[in-house]
Amino acid sequence: MRNFAFILPMCLLLTSFARGQKPSDSSLTSVNLMPMPAHIERGSGTLAVDGSFSVALNGYSEDRLRRAVQRFGADLSKRTGVTFLNLNSDPSKAKLIVQTAAASKEVQDVTEDESYTLEITTSGAKLSAPNSLGSLHGLETFLQLVENSSSGFVVPAVTIHDSPRFVWRGLLIDVGRHFMPIPVLQRNLDGMAAVKMNVLHLHLSDYQGFRIESKKFPKLHELGSDGMYYTQAEIKDLLAYARDRGIRIVPEFDMPGHSTSWFVGYPDLASSPGPYSIERKFGVLDPAMDPTRDSVYEFLDTFIGEMAKLFTDAYFHIGGDEVNGKQWDANPKIQEFKRTHNINSNQELQAFFTARVQKIVAKHGKIMVGWDEILTPGIPQNIVIHSWRGPESLAAAAKQGYKGLLSNGYYIDLMFPASNHYAVDPMSGPAANLTPEEKQRILGGEAAMWSEYASPENIDSRIWPRTAAIAERLWSPQEIRDVNSMYARLSQISWRLDTLGLTHNSSYIPMLQRIANTQDVSALRVLADVLEPTKEYSREEFAKVPPTTLDPLNRLVDAVRPESEVARRFATQVDAFTSSQCKDDAAKNQIRSSLVHWQANDARLQPLLSSNQLLQEASSLSQSLATVSATGLQALDLIEKNQKPASDWKAQQIGVLDQAKKPTSAQLLLMIVGPVQKLTETAAGGGACAAP
Amino acid sequence: MRNFAFILPMCLLLTSFARGQKPSDSSLTSVNLMPMPAHIERGSGTLAVDGSFSVALNGYSEDRLRRAVQRFGADLSKRTGVTFLNLNSDPSKAKLIVQTAAASKEVQDVTEDESYTLEITTSGAKLSAPNSLGSLHGLETFLQLVENSSSGFVVPAVTIHDSPRFVWRGLLIDVGRHFMPIPVLQRNLDGMAAVKMNVLHLHLSDYQGFRIESKKFPKLHELGSDGMYYTQAEIKDLLAYARDRGIRIVPEFDMPGHSTSWFVGYPDLASSPGPYSIERKFGVLDPAMDPTRDSVYEFLDTFIGEMAKLFTDAYFHIGGDEVNGKQWDANPKIQEFKRTHNINSNQELQAFFTARVQKIVAKHGKIMVGWDEILTPGIPQNIVIHSWRGPESLAAAAKQGYKGLLSNGYYIDLMFPASNHYAVDPMSGPAANLTPEEKQRILGGEAAMWSEYASPENIDSRIWPRTAAIAERLWSPQEIRDVNSMYARLSQISWRLDTLGLTHNSSYIPMLQRIANTQDVSALRVLADVLEPTKEYSREEFAKVPPTTLDPLNRLVDAVRPESEVARRFATQVDAFTSSQCKDDAAKNQIRSSLVHWQANDARLQPLLSSNQLLQEASSLSQSLATVSATGLQALDLIEKNQKPASDWKAQQIGVLDQAKKPTSAQLLLMIVGPVQKLTETAAGGGACAAP
Repeated sequence: MRNFAFILPMCLLLTSFARGQKPSDSSLTSVNLMPMPAHIERGSGTLAVDGSFSVALNGYSEDRLRRAVQRFGADLSKRTGVTFLNLNSDPSKAKLIVQTAAASKEVQDVTEDESYTLEITTSGAKLSAPNSLGSLHGLETFLQLVENSSSGFVVPAVTIHDSPRFVWRGLLIDVGRHFMPIPVLQRNLDGMAAVKMNVLHLHLSDYQGFRIESKKFPKLHELGSDGMYYTQAEIKDLLAYARDRGIRIVPEFDMPGHSTSWFVGYPDLASSPGPYSIERKFGVLDPAMDPTRDSVYEFLDTFIGEMAKLFTDAYFHIGGDEVNGKQWDANPKIQEFKRTHNINSNQELQAFFTARVQKIVAKHGKIMVGWDEILTPGIPQNIVIHSWRGPESLAAAAKQGYKGLLSNGYYIDLMFPASNHYAVDPMSGPAANLTPEEKQRILGGEAAMWSEYASPENIDSRIWPRTAAIAERLWSPQEIRDVNSMYARLSQISWRLDTLGLTHNSSYIPMLQRIANTQDVSALRVLADVLEPTKEYSREEFAKVPPTTLDPLNRLVDAVRPESEVARRFATQVDAFTSSQCKDDAAKNQIRSSLVHWQANDARLQPLLSSNQLLQEASSLSQSLATVSATGLQALDLIEKNQKPASDWKAQQIGVLDQAKKPTSAQLLLMIVGPVQKLTETAAGGGACAAP
Repeated sequence: MRNFAFILPMCLLLTSFARGQKPSDSSLTSVNLMPMPAHIERGSGTLAVDGSFSVALNGYSEDRLRRAVQRFGADLSKRTGVTFLNLNSDPSKAKLIVQTAAASKEVQDVTEDESYTLEITTSGAKLSAPNSLGSLHGLETFLQLVENSSSGFVVPAVTIHDSPRFVWRGLLIDVGRHFMPIPVLQRNLDGMAAVKMNVLHLHLSDYQGFRIESKKFPKLHELGSDGMYYTQAEIKDLLAYARDRGIRIVPEFDMPGHSTSWFVGYPDLASSPGPYSIERKFGVLDPAMDPTRDSVYEFLDTFIGEMAKLFTDAYFHIGGDEVNGKQWDANPKIQEFKRTHNINSNQELQAFFTARVQKIVAKHGKIMVGWDEILTPGIPQNIVIHSWRGPESLAAAAKQGYKGLLSNGYYIDLMFPASNHYAVDPMSGPAANLTPEEKQRILGGEAAMWSEYASPENIDSRIWPRTAAIAERLWSPQEIRDVNSMYARLSQISWRLDTLGLTHNSSYIPMLQRIANTQDVSALRVLADVLEPTKEYSREEFAKVPPTTLDPLNRLVDAVRPESEVARRFATQVDAFTSSQCKDDAAKNQIRSSLVHWQANDARLQPLLSSNQLLQEASSLSQSLATVSATGLQALDLIEKNQKPASDWKAQQIGVLDQAKKPTSAQLLLMIVGPVQKLTETAAGGGACAAP
């Protein structure tokens, strides 16, 4: 589910749609919560979080809740400096009572009530929930509410009735292409819990790697992983870690395609004779399981049985995407099988495979999930269609009675801004016209972190903070969609995630330093701060040599953030300035100050760029930053002096900007070009500040 | 070994001594190596590290070396962007041949040769070593040599003959007061290997915690650790991890004092009846083992036997420091024992204890190490005296035939600058007058990271980069002591350590954000960048309430660095300016720019400080930064205009500066006061820039 380009047009469409929206209650934007709760009412006053603060568990209790309160207390203690928080208070005296009505299910599932109510007054707080899941969510909400005040740390008086809009709020991490050690998964589970996500989808096998120990078929991990796989003991610990945080783990074993790593140890599974070796390149490749042989299904029966026991979740993802059929076409026995079984296409052949695998999955007590290719006539309805190719398949599946999940529009590896993902709604587009019953079948969605270009070092920066915007889309009411409010809260949740141990911010400077091979990267950072990686699959398309899993992922494109915060703020300032008819002096001064800084940077940076082979590809970008900034300063001067430019000025400058927009071999985009173009057009008299 | 004040005066003395030194060969300062090798000769030209680069192991080989080459290759690949480094080349074609003559010992020890020779020419490189330890060190040297150049990444042509000055180059980490999880130790082992340190000393038990699983006496870890301890399996893995990096692990179990955590589970070991609970406070406390009872020695025999098997190293540290004797004095049976055994003091009683423990340690095949209190008449010579109270005890021990280690002067928790530690030399002071044979007995030293105020989050920032300066002191020739060169190389090794996963830099901003409870900490950072924690034990002395192990360590003092790089550079600029008779305009402009920035910061920062209870204690420091900067700017104006100030100006300004120097309850020091005072005195006509 990687290599087509359905995503960009839809994102752009939805973004422009969402930009005009206002939140129904603008006072909400002052509440620093992400995701925004379903219902929130501000009271008056605040509750102090000081040495007198105490917590009590009341009603149903369990070790998981006690551990959650311990983590809550440790976080609160750090943030407020209070040493001896009483986390085991008498309920009649506690400042925060956590009132849990009952246990959640032994294996968390999609039917469970995750709601909670949090009532905070000036004298105390009560968190109540029908089961432990709601209590876990409510504790996270409380932590986000802690505010500074002149009288000490406080939480505002507030009444929150909260529950998720969708029951499936997932993050897919592709550990097949690049392995991610357990600590990477643990810290991302911490991040997910903070924004109330509840499914970690592990993409455990692909062409490039098989990432889990199989006791039944040990050559899977021994020969298919380069030694990088999870033991079953580690997975058990990880499941417990996730459950502690109200998170399910859904395993995916992609089949019949995306499966070269299986064939290294077990070539008889494949549709062409081996030998096979672990794939290093990316893309849609030929190897696929042989759907015509009983021995393949016997293997899968044993293997799925083993994994179904290990992974406790009710759902089991079998992939099913991107089979190009070439191995099938080239195999005379498979062609013969198609003829004798009246199978007229490779799609039908895959449907035959999927139907048999579904029976195996069901036999082992699991509900099958697969990418939208598996939606073919005759497949039983008790499966889940995971849409990656477009919202149409989600709606089509729901109409036909299938449950569905949306990942189309949530591919966070494609480097789109948070606002794009935020605008994607599982219930918009074709799904908007479904009946209420059909809509019920849309369970939610998953942010998808494919890992062609992700390492343990930079993956957090590809996931966070943008995934928090997707988490809000899947949790909060549909009408919560003010982009400015989202960004304001996103920058707050971002540092909170930092303190949980995520490295999305902290890995940035060390990566720049290693790339630069020197300590002082101040000038490099000025450039890197206004760059973004090119979008979608352009990195593959424009690569001089095909990328591989062995590439060190230490180019500038690997360090810069998917979304430039500096450029986004600059664009906001330019918008404020031009929409004020150029009267907003504060914005003007900030714009000038940035442009002066950027213009001067190239001279500071070039000595490094010209002496460092990894950075030479950024040389033209650094020059562009200077020339584009010069254009911006000229435009600002003209506007300030209320002066008409020479007749050919605009065309010249647009030429400069067009040049700066072109993607370079560095696979980086200079993100200030758009706002400078706006200034240029304004100065040329095309904008709102035309001379009177 | 924590609570006395021997260290500061000596450090100051030695620093002023070292400041006047020049390196014997000034060209060395351009080689970016830390520690500096024993002998280095620059050739001409460079060797390319590009796609043609390849490595071969030749001669003796082992898995450890192959793993080291893998790590070497991964690092080199990241830094140079070369994907397919050939790490298993034909020796006749390899660009780097690692020629190891023989295996090192199965259990690494202090008698082993750690030398290596690295010869790099324009056509290839050869690393040769008598055993694997030298090869490990040489690979680290090669990595540090990688430079940028306009033609690609290179290493300079160079011939290095290198070996350590001391055989024991250690880092003590106190995991007793604050537990440090395994990943913290692993990343610090990586850092140690990068600077060629070879001993990790784990202080495993103290009043506040017992940190290792005992199968013989499980109540030690079950009741003495709050659940925070290492399993024996984890220790075995850690020993292997350390050995892979040429590092020994020496365990310390502090006795008979510093032992409350033992008594929680086994009160009968103590000299006063229990019950005991895990200690939360710091300092020298009363609980001590009962040295008069055979059952105590039987317990220790079993326990030390268990630990002696687990920890493979030949040395076993039994602490032995800071017994205040109060429990002994209060126990009539112990008093009676002293009388009947003719023991006239508690020192003699401890000597009796130490002698018996030494027999136990020796029985289990280990050499005993202890803090300098254990040096008492009659103790066998086959022990090691670990000097914490002063260099005198080290020299005294050597004179009496004992081996010794220096940690006095290397207490990195006391927040002294790197230059102070760098100036401390095990062979200076009283040791300088030892005979060559006596000098041989000084094995080396250890940086000591006591953890009253260290958490997994900030401990790296207390250890690094300053410990690299100590590593150089213990590895490099005594005459390598140019402080400017050290600092230039320290800033380079610092980012290299970052990329190994150490968090000494990356934890800074997230900590500031959590303390500030907000995303934008730019103004707070300006202040924090010029602050340092108060030195030595002042944090204990001036605390309003006694600090405990439960304190959240989330005050500004916990986030700021032990040594302010910004203030140090500012001081260097002021030195350059005044020593140029105020003619150095570049320095002047930098000074002015900093002062203007600092003066304006208070107004930006106060809104945050006044609304955040954790930061209110920094309010006067922020004001001081503004007023001190104003003084500095006045001084600079006077100097620029060549103008004599009014007669009372100097006295007024010195008053301002004296005020700013006073320690505040925030336990922070404003580090720009000294340089501004220098400017002030210069302006007042007392300096080199007096008006003609």
